[in-house]
Amino acid sequence: MTPPKASTASPAYKSLLPEGAGQLLKLATPLPLDNGQALPDVTIAYESYGALNADKSNAILICHPLTADQFVASDHPVTGKPGWWATLIGPGKMIDTDTYFVICTNVLGGCMGSTGPSSVNPETGNPFALDFPVITLADMVRAQVAVIDALGIEMLHAVIGGSMGGMQVLEWAAGYGERVFAAAPIATAARHTPQNIAFHEVGRQAVMADPDWADGKYALTDQRPTKGLAVARMAAHVTYLSEQALNHKFGRDFQDRDAASFSFDADFKVESYLRHQGKSFVDRFDANSYLYITRAMDYFDLSRGEPLAARFVDTKTKFLLASFTSDWLYPTDESKRIVRALHGAGADVSFTEIESDKGHDAFLLDEPGFFDVLNGFVQSIGKARGLI
Amino acid sequence: MTPPKASTASPAYKSLLPEGAGQLLKLATPLPLDNGQALPDVTIAYESYGALNADKSNAILICHPLTADQFVASDHPVTGKPGWWATLIGPGKMIDTDTYFVICTNVLGGCMGSTGPSSVNPETGNPFALDFPVITLADMVRAQVAVIDALGIEMLHAVIGGSMGGMQVLEWAAGYGERVFAAAPIATAARHTPQNIAFHEVGRQAVMADPDWADGKYALTDQRPTKGLAVARMAAHVTYLSEQALNHKFGRDFQDRDAASFSFDADFKVESYLRHQGKSFVDRFDANSYLYITRAMDYFDLSRGEPLAARFVDTKTKFLLASFTSDWLYPTDESKRIVRALHGAGADVSFTEIESDKGHDAFLLDEPGFFDVLNGFVQSIGKARGLI
Repeated sequence: MTPPKASTASPAYKSLLPEGAGQLLKLATPLPLDNGQALPDVTIAYESYGALNADKSNAILICHPLTADQFVASDHPVTGKPGWWATLIGPGKMIDTDTYFVICTNVLGGCMGSTGPSSVNPETGNPFALDFPVITLADMVRAQVAVIDALGIEMLHAVIGGSMGGMQVLEWAAGYGERVFAAAPIATAARHTPQNIAFHEVGRQAVMADPDWADGKYALTDQRPTKGLAVARMAAHVTYLSEQALNHKFGRDFQDRDAASFSFDADFKVESYLRHQGKSFVDRFDANSYLYITRAMDYFDLSRGEPLAARFVDTKTKFLLASFTSDWLYPTDESKRIVRALHGAGADVSFTEIESDKGHDAFLLDEPGFFDVLNGFVQSIGKARGLI
Repeated sequence: MTPPKASTASPAYKSLLPEGAGQLLKLATPLPLDNGQALPDVTIAYESYGALNADKSNAILICHPLTADQFVASDHPVTGKPGWWATLIGPGKMIDTDTYFVICTNVLGGCMGSTGPSSVNPETGNPFALDFPVITLADMVRAQVAVIDALGIEMLHAVIGGSMGGMQVLEWAAGYGERVFAAAPIATAARHTPQNIAFHEVGRQAVMADPDWADGKYALTDQRPTKGLAVARMAAHVTYLSEQALNHKFGRDFQDRDAASFSFDADFKVESYLRHQGKSFVDRFDANSYLYITRAMDYFDLSRGEPLAARFVDTKTKFLLASFTSDWLYPTDESKRIVRALHGAGADVSFTEIESDKGHDAFLLDEPGFFDVLNGFVQSIGKARGLI
């Protein structure tokens, strides 16, 4: 296959993926969506590491969380920062790219090269904006299945991801279990709770309150809703950190001063940190993508109103679940709910709650307890299939 | 004393207190502030219920939380809703206004008649906006002390409040203990944690991101930053509710529809509820007051860097503390920290953690366990001073 370049037909199109960076795959057929439509001309951007072996049995799919992207093990083309799981993935690392072919796709609806709300709507020649269809986690995974098909891979050795990535892992295991040898949904949940929805709705309203959002059509203007998106990021970021982590990192310490300024400056370190998180986020993320992806997460309920175990009947996939004690976004109880369902379906499942004070973000950070557990799983499934 | 009317000198002045509603007291002398300034011409709006007895021994001061005001036991002049603690306070009620003289003041910095950022700056003839001094909880209480002085009350029978009201109760007990027979700080903390600060900073940034905020000078325009303030309210409101309460009240139920709309409408009940909370808030609250009062709360640290017990040395005040199991904004540990300090100071203190799934807002809701505990305290201190 010849990966097409991202379209640059319309001057209004502003993909955040720099021209020529990364790999792009144009899907051969329209993508069926949960809303009943079929989306034509879908492009999925992806990165891969290592080489696919002769019998195509060594492929590991990594699913990225909400605000990450396909640059999981290589430097980010916008920020220049190392891949978000570069500690785990690479030559000689836990997920050894001398052994495995690792692939990560930018989700459908994303802003790093995959088709999303900032892509050009062929009917108008302008970016879709809110004319882009509202998508679901299952839609995202359907796009990934098409990529895996295009690569000629029958069965994935493993699908691994944390947070929203874990939700995609669950959709893979529930919808395409016969193509998933092993699945590791980490720090995640099988549905969005009303509290999860509430925080996302705050973020969406912050974006939509920004006049520069222009009813979603900011690509046709010289502005982007950076202020609203920054506020959304700040609100979300608080949910990624535990109270303990905030106490350890910041406490009530002042930033660059000895006493209160009696002003609205960022007196406290935690304020300064949050403002920085908000400001830096807008350089690498698109506001409409943020709306669409958070919406997909809020719609996520793997059970579809039936007992959750019914989604895993006769599964042969080997599961690893891990949660973190201080994660209050997707707390351990949500993982336990999945584990109970998997047990109910007679699945091969291993579950560990990892002691950590780092909150939800622990799965992205240097957390040896998590590394040990994931490493054990990677070793075990590699041996089971004679790959190592 | 003759209560002056709120100033209407400038057409730009827009107090949210309707003309003629409530009682106003102009302080006789400038109010010393923690920032070193003295604020002249301070007016404090208040409501009172019942009558002060001959020896002025039956006064109970109620301190209001962040977004409430002095209308604690009477209908709100803007919303028409009953007073926020009208269930507890009134003739024949738990805090019986046939026996007690109950007073509640709108905090300094508020927007219901007390001097705050929307008051006229005598130096310019325009509303202060951000030229209003950044105030503290101690400043708010200093203004209340001036009111109590003006009423000729030597000792308050009790000071009672929840949340930010509880912080004022603590400032009273720590700073003016000899004038407080009994103190009930409910569902509160002796300092704002970095997580508390973080959520407030998100709200402030949401307000400031709204172009209609106009660097605080919106009173000089025809606009008010209603969108930004609504987002701030939504973000804060999530922290007032427990995850259990959200699950019970809303779950993943849809609002007025059977299935997902695949749009950005408020599909879920919890979204609809939050949007309503945001929209209705802006009718009764001022954006700059929100900035100033949240800032005061973030600055709040009763310990002032010393052991907390040092603030209560030799206290004779009788304390009741109560926390709620599902309150994650000011969780039980924060109350226990205060209780330990009070014990360390040899104080007379009673503490109860109340089983509730209603989250932080439990102190404002129909929570019989809380009513029982507070009633026991009110009865006990009333008998101790021969008032009942």
